[in-house]
Amino acid sequence: MEKYAVIVAGGSGMRMGTSIPKQFLLLRNKPVLWYSINAFLEAYNDLQIIVVLPPDYAETGLQIIRTTIDPNRVWITTGGETRFHSVKNGLEPINKSGVVFVHDGVRCLLTPALIRRCYEATVDKGNAIPSVGEVDTIRVETVNGNELMDRNKVRRIQTPQTFFSDLIKAAFEQDYDELFTDEASVVERLGVKINLIEGEASNIKITHPVDLLIAEKILEEREVQ
Amino acid sequence: MEKYAVIVAGGSGMRMGTSIPKQFLLLRNKPVLWYSINAFLEAYNDLQIIVVLPPDYAETGLQIIRTTIDPNRVWITTGGETRFHSVKNGLEPINKSGVVFVHDGVRCLLTPALIRRCYEATVDKGNAIPSVGEVDTIRVETVNGNELMDRNKVRRIQTPQTFFSDLIKAAFEQDYDELFTDEASVVERLGVKINLIEGEASNIKITHPVDLLIAEKILEEREVQ
Repeated sequence: MEKYAVIVAGGSGMRMGTSIPKQFLLLRNKPVLWYSINAFLEAYNDLQIIVVLPPDYAETGLQIIRTTIDPNRVWITTGGETRFHSVKNGLEPINKSGVVFVHDGVRCLLTPALIRRCYEATVDKGNAIPSVGEVDTIRVETVNGNELMDRNKVRRIQTPQTFFSDLIKAAFEQDYDELFTDEASVVERLGVKINLIEGEASNIKITHPVDLLIAEKILEEREVQ
Repeated sequence: MEKYAVIVAGGSGMRMGTSIPKQFLLLRNKPVLWYSINAFLEAYNDLQIIVVLPPDYAETGLQIIRTTIDPNRVWITTGGETRFHSVKNGLEPINKSGVVFVHDGVRCLLTPALIRRCYEATVDKGNAIPSVGEVDTIRVETVNGNELMDRNKVRRIQTPQTFFSDLIKAAFEQDYDELFTDEASVVERLGVKINLIEGEASNIKITHPVDLLIAEKILEEREVQ
């Protein structure tokens, strides 16, 4: 089956307090985005990638792509106003039926094993959303105050969110709604049941400067194993 | 008003993969627990502390207490089978009306400012539970599948969970229930409304080895400011 990954790297990195968007920051001398691209290239050798870049960073993106293990399978496009619009741009070139992974470029530590599990679960059920359990106590604000959640039922959502291409392309034909916080929420609006699968604790998002230190530590631990 | 802090440091640290319980691990050459105790001693000079220690670590605990800024205000007791039982032991010596803070010993980066805000809010409303907003997408498992939570309404709960002493002591007279995941859940069972206040993003829990690196980074940033 055809396999496409849309890697969203359109962010401007305001929260890092750096002038460089976070997907281009260096982790062990390689840009964060480099790791994300390579994980997908490694997972399947017939997978093609569309990287969604901020308009001013196409050249930076191309330089990173040239250093990956197979630049010929990587394409670029530019991001839109919101994540929804960026993903929509990334889906545009996909014109065959298959499986589409939509991934946060700053979740750079995902493994090929997770990508393959997302693929298998999608072939089986039409979509696969990786998620992990919750360790903290969580409360939810209600009309009268707040209430304790059963933490065993809480799932923290990750990416790559994975779908049959026909499904996700149809979902992104809908009008934008600010309640669309991720791709699963867009697809769910069509009445489709969301299929959660087990993600990876190490599949973290590089959002704050300290996350780069955590990422380094995770890479170090992987080397020891 | 009388002020007591019960600092729970009864854990055995299995998740750290170390033989030393995590509350005794070193952060910049001082044990994690040292930071927690000092923050409370600094917040109010009439505050007394009861540290709940694992049975085999009373001597280790005493050594740490001796190096804090005012060891004469710190007492020790030993932990029980669960967190509920440990807190119950820690509340035992409190025999005057006042305000009680119950704190995770491994949340060692809390500031005196947060402690004072918890106190003020408790004097005002009887209890104060620090919490922070959610940045990830969260889903909750339901009977038929799962549903997206409104992330703006999700609060991650921290400590020190703070209460009028009469309230928390009465709450801990109840029989143990495994749904008691924190002190707020025990007090809430009495029909009391839980008062959430703003916590601190840096008030992290030292649970995994990488958390020590994050903690070092946070201390470094505080020095620069």
